[in-house]
Amino acid sequence: MAFKQKHLLGIQDLSPDEILTVLDTAESFIEISTREVKKVPTLRGKTIINLFFEPSTRTRSSFELAAKRLSADIVNFNKQASSVTKGESFKDTILNLEAMNPDALIIRHSSSGTPHFATTFCRSHIINAGDGAHEHPTQALLDAFTMRQMKKNFQDLKVVIVGDILHSRVARSNIFLLRKMGARVVLVGPPSLLPLEFRQFGAEVDFDFDRAIKGADVVMMLRIQLERQEKNYFPSIREYRNLYSLTEKRFKLAKKNAIIMHPGPINRGVEISADLADSAKSVILKQVENGIAIRMAVLYLLLGGKESEATD
Amino acid sequence: MAFKQKHLLGIQDLSPDEILTVLDTAESFIEISTREVKKVPTLRGKTIINLFFEPSTRTRSSFELAAKRLSADIVNFNKQASSVTKGESFKDTILNLEAMNPDALIIRHSSSGTPHFATTFCRSHIINAGDGAHEHPTQALLDAFTMRQMKKNFQDLKVVIVGDILHSRVARSNIFLLRKMGARVVLVGPPSLLPLEFRQFGAEVDFDFDRAIKGADVVMMLRIQLERQEKNYFPSIREYRNLYSLTEKRFKLAKKNAIIMHPGPINRGVEISADLADSAKSVILKQVENGIAIRMAVLYLLLGGKESEATD
Amino acid sequence: MAFKQKHLLGIQDLSPDEILTVLDTAESFIEISTREVKKVPTLRGKTIINLFFEPSTRTRSSFELAAKRLSADIVNFNKQASSVTKGESFKDTILNLEAMNPDALIIRHSSSGTPHFATTFCRSHIINAGDGAHEHPTQALLDAFTMRQMKKNFQDLKVVIVGDILHSRVARSNIFLLRKMGARVVLVGPPSLLPLEFRQFGAEVDFDFDRAIKGADVVMMLRIQLERQEKNYFPSIREYRNLYSLTEKRFKLAKKNAIIMHPGPINRGVEISADLADSAKSVILKQVENGIAIRMAVLYLLLGGKESEATD
Repeated sequence: MAFKQKHLLGIQDLSPDEILTVLDTAESFIEISTREVKKVPTLRGKTIINLFFEPSTRTRSSFELAAKRLSADIVNFNKQASSVTKGESFKDTILNLEAMNPDALIIRHSSSGTPHFATTFCRSHIINAGDGAHEHPTQALLDAFTMRQMKKNFQDLKVVIVGDILHSRVARSNIFLLRKMGARVVLVGPPSLLPLEFRQFGAEVDFDFDRAIKGADVVMMLRIQLERQEKNYFPSIREYRNLYSLTEKRFKLAKKNAIIMHPGPINRGVEISADLADSAKSVILKQVENGIAIRMAVLYLLLGGKESEATD
Repeated sequence: MAFKQKHLLGIQDLSPDEILTVLDTAESFIEISTREVKKVPTLRGKTIINLFFEPSTRTRSSFELAAKRLSADIVNFNKQASSVTKGESFKDTILNLEAMNPDALIIRHSSSGTPHFATTFCRSHIINAGDGAHEHPTQALLDAFTMRQMKKNFQDLKVVIVGDILHSRVARSNIFLLRKMGARVVLVGPPSLLPLEFRQFGAEVDFDFDRAIKGADVVMMLRIQLERQEKNYFPSIREYRNLYSLTEKRFKLAKKNAIIMHPGPINRGVEISADLADSAKSVILKQVENGIAIRMAVLYLLLGGKESEATD
Repeated sequence: MAFKQKHLLGIQDLSPDEILTVLDTAESFIEISTREVKKVPTLRGKTIINLFFEPSTRTRSSFELAAKRLSADIVNFNKQASSVTKGESFKDTILNLEAMNPDALIIRHSSSGTPHFATTFCRSHIINAGDGAHEHPTQALLDAFTMRQMKKNFQDLKVVIVGDILHSRVARSNIFLLRKMGARVVLVGPPSLLPLEFRQFGAEVDFDFDRAIKGADVVMMLRIQLERQEKNYFPSIREYRNLYSLTEKRFKLAKKNAIIMHPGPINRGVEISADLADSAKSVILKQVENGIAIRMAVLYLLLGGKESEATD
């Protein structure tokens, strides 16, 4: 199998072959979650720590269920109820947890680069569950898995990613993955939230959603953080909605069989109309379902192989 | 077995036969929790999500232990640490969790009807763990189980339920269950917390505790929410206590072998004297113990049967 | 085996033989946490409740992992999300959890004596995970285990414990244990945080760190609670640091092969220099690792033996 990583820090580190290995492995796990007995003994006796310094429903639960369905032991740790409130440093928190001999640490943190920093002093496998505005690799992998389910071929895809690109780790990981796999990526958003620098990643930049969406196979809407408005990233929700919300009228400009994606949680009626979110074109809940298979695959590839395979 | 429900939303939906089926099934589970090895493999590989939008010690832990003693995987989700803080709707939260292919969602919510609403768009089994002032069916079932342990026959029972009937889901579920099983139910409380409309459920209404308690087999005290006082539901704790607290003097008016119940948590010295709460007449902790057996029975009846049995 | 306790409330209750039994039992568990499959079926079907009324990373997680590696079911309960917020008494909270038939309750509480109080009305095994400024027995046991790993013989050891002795349950449990095992214990700190009464426990008291550290085999630094400064226990962090911080210069006064311990979380640059904390002389992370083996041993000795052995 073409997967030689010790950690999953970001899509940037993965080769196209490694990406395909994760997707293919997830394929074999997708069925387990729909069985009567949703559980295999693969990772029995492994210890996984879910280390979330930011609140999260879906990602934390998704990793937790992925671990449990592989029979691993998983311990949740969240910022509020911890020694972080006593002023312990990030490094010391990690070192202390690592001294308990976990096999993997799944880390979400508001600062970019924290999971990478952890690898410099950790023995465990580190999985990035979202670091600041940097990367969210399992999200991009589950998105790719979902696109492949619906569209087969990355090379011929036009993917339009819309919204607050500047602050989005989901956008970054998706751009990296889709460009590696040969898809065309068009970024759309207001200029204040979409710096031209993103072109250096091989993506196109367009401030006009109506123009960009033409011929799109995939329309990926990002969550708009309503609190950004206070910081003057956009003048008003109303104006933002007029220009960058996915409405039924606008969606008609995409390809006939285009699909709608969103990493969630969605703001109904802000970045996407409620009807479209619930429509047959939306694969938003499919993404969530696939998330468990992807995370099972990642845990399996990192922890399940022979020791000799897992080196970096 | 006479249990045809897909969900457990409330006692109102259950037939007397179904209620007896739950109680009989719980009977067979009561012994497991006192074994050396408190665990059976019945629900191995099932995924259960505990979804509590209100704080709770006993109900959440009780479901968690029930699930674990049946070898199911259970994931806790509580409001504070979740996307609800990001403004996600109840429906989207549920849909996202459901996309992870759980077998059951156990829902507690401050709004009446939320578990019922969930069934309109969910595939999973939904268990109501308390919805607003509406129903708390596993509480009524464990109460009935406890009464049957102590008293055998529902038909001849006089059950007096005392306190804030208006806001109590425990009272409602108990009224429904006890009336279905043929018991006599007398509701007692100050007029501001006990509307006469409750007579339509087949219960008697009495504002005089000393009169109502005469001949009672079961005295069920409800927790008084001290904060109601600010809203003028009752003039003072002192006056409330004089009229509606269970004191030893008052309890002497009940039948000689009457028992005392309370769903907890108790306010010692407010709705019940501390001595009575701890006395041999009190079955309050028996209720908690039986709660696990009842919840094991509910999980077993909903999730453990053949697929063909669990339809509605 | 020389372990006759039903509960683990404090080191004060243990005989030297019982202490050695815990250490020897932990020895046999130390290897499990480094295996591929970190799990043995020893406590399968046992229910353990982690009852933390104070925030904690390491102790709670350590007990949780210890329980899981022994295959026990463990339920976490923390103050914030519980009925304690509804004003339920400590006793009623415990009684309610105990009615769920747990095998053990692991209790941390800010008030001294709460675990002891719990034993007066509980049937379960009670484990003290830290009560006020009183005892933290598993910490002292893991400290002793770590000293024995590094130093073999307690009789010839000089252990210097430095910092806020007055408020430290770690110090108290260590003093009790080390004196029982025959080690020499010297307490060091500012007079406001180190009452002479500690001499009654068989420890020496010294306000001069430079004098006390001479010839030390073990230097155990305690966490300084920065908020104590506001209560005038010490005039300033700067002055505290000058007198009682472990610096490289000061550490040179100890024996050549002396080791540095700290119960964590550490304040780098306050009670200990960052370099020393990370140096080869520091066994701080070894303590954390050993903590799991000690807690596995305690759970095993209390819950794993025949019923007839576990009486008090």
